[in-house]
Amino acid sequence: MTKFEIPPEHPRAESLHIREKLIENFHRKAVAEAGLIAHGRGEAFDYLLGETTTRHASDAIMTAASSLLTAERPVISVNGNTAALVPNEVVQLAEIARAKIEVNLFYRSLERELAIKELLAKAGAQELLGIGLEASAKISELGSERRHVDPRGILAADVVMVPLEDGDRTEALVNMGKKVIAIDLNPLSRTSQKATITIVDNVVRAMPRLVKAATELEGEKEVRRKILLNFDNTRNLAETITLIQQRLSSLAEKGRYLSLENESREF
Amino acid sequence: MTKFEIPPEHPRAESLHIREKLIENFHRKAVAEAGLIAHGRGEAFDYLLGETTTRHASDAIMTAASSLLTAERPVISVNGNTAALVPNEVVQLAEIARAKIEVNLFYRSLERELAIKELLAKAGAQELLGIGLEASAKISELGSERRHVDPRGILAADVVMVPLEDGDRTEALVNMGKKVIAIDLNPLSRTSQKATITIVDNVVRAMPRLVKAATELEGEKEVRRKILLNFDNTRNLAETITLIQQRLSSLAEKGRYLSLENESREF
Repeated sequence: MTKFEIPPEHPRAESLHIREKLIENFHRKAVAEAGLIAHGRGEAFDYLLGETTTRHASDAIMTAASSLLTAERPVISVNGNTAALVPNEVVQLAEIARAKIEVNLFYRSLERELAIKELLAKAGAQELLGIGLEASAKISELGSERRHVDPRGILAADVVMVPLEDGDRTEALVNMGKKVIAIDLNPLSRTSQKATITIVDNVVRAMPRLVKAATELEGEKEVRRKILLNFDNTRNLAETITLIQQRLSSLAEKGRYLSLENESREF
Repeated sequence: MTKFEIPPEHPRAESLHIREKLIENFHRKAVAEAGLIAHGRGEAFDYLLGETTTRHASDAIMTAASSLLTAERPVISVNGNTAALVPNEVVQLAEIARAKIEVNLFYRSLERELAIKELLAKAGAQELLGIGLEASAKISELGSERRHVDPRGILAADVVMVPLEDGDRTEALVNMGKKVIAIDLNPLSRTSQKATITIVDNVVRAMPRLVKAATELEGEKEVRRKILLNFDNTRNLAETITLIQQRLSSLAEKGRYLSLENESREF
């Protein structure tokens, strides 16, 4: 991948750059093979969304920022893809929301945890939970390595933000009574359907917007309360799915490949 | 990935096994990093299709088999993902259709070519074009490494089958006057839109069906002629897109996550 220069005028230059960053961090052991495949799934759904932050995603972002700021013990759960793509935004958001950052991997290995720690430390993270034996508590209903959690972090949290999460774990966290904020490009996934607040957006676009929203809402307790009251996750998801359907129709209709000429070079 | 056993009752067991095979061949250097990401994109579209071979795909498969059998110099173009997932079917189809097999990579390297050669040789391939300096001809309008083709293979072919192809190359082959058969899970991609015959299906499902169709149609010249006459690729693609839209509607409507419970464990 890195052997080939991406011309800046390439219609998919941004998407290719993100991909490059991921592959680079795959070689540094922070990203798993399954993380590359998961990224591909995200690319497909992002393409269907029009690679844009929808109005519905913006609403979910405002609500997520309100929820994090209002929480008593917020935690941001980080995996390899998140650390590779948005390390600075994770640290910034954690700072504004006074949230802890915890590493939590589906394919757990100390090597990967340390690679992720390095990425986040470089971005300015002071403390990072969930590394090695620190993840000493277990979520009993989960089979994967993701059941290990830090007793000072996710176990004690009231709000957990899980960018790029798997469905089982989202469900387990919700069943434990926690509010879960998910970032997931597939509005139909179990993560999206089970989460308390679902941001259907590319993590690369959503995270800077979340930082901005949190900065704006920091002193605004009453505004946050209203935002939280007005948000309906089920409706938001349904409207996002409708949006994808409409886009499929319009892509299918208007001359087809003409409209795709500038869109789908890599598909 | 391989460290974790996949329980056979897992709702996504088949999809996970395919993924495992791909990662295994990634470690053997046959599959590129970008191949893992591309596979993820395919997974997303397959999920939207319902992970099934649609009636439209079956029609395209019958047409593709007819086209290969009727061709004078058919060639099956193979990349890393194809060699990893369906090596036996590639060899079987080539035998029935008297087609040549040519390796053609976006991210070309002799190491990868040789790894792919090994996979296909193990599946019984006698001859394999396009390795190293044998790919001495160039498709002038292409920038990527894929422009290198074998003068005895793709350059001279009248029908080229390109499973899991990129759009630029499909277009270039069509512009050279070749009939192109594509297997692509995204009905909106340039490959799908530019190809002469587009099979919107998972290569793992489509290839055994193609082998079966070619076996059945081998002596049936007149039947093949009719099949080829009756097929309309544009209509077939439009109907496939409509099918995805309908599935999105129904997924969005029926209780949502209830219907997904058994479908999207990994999404």
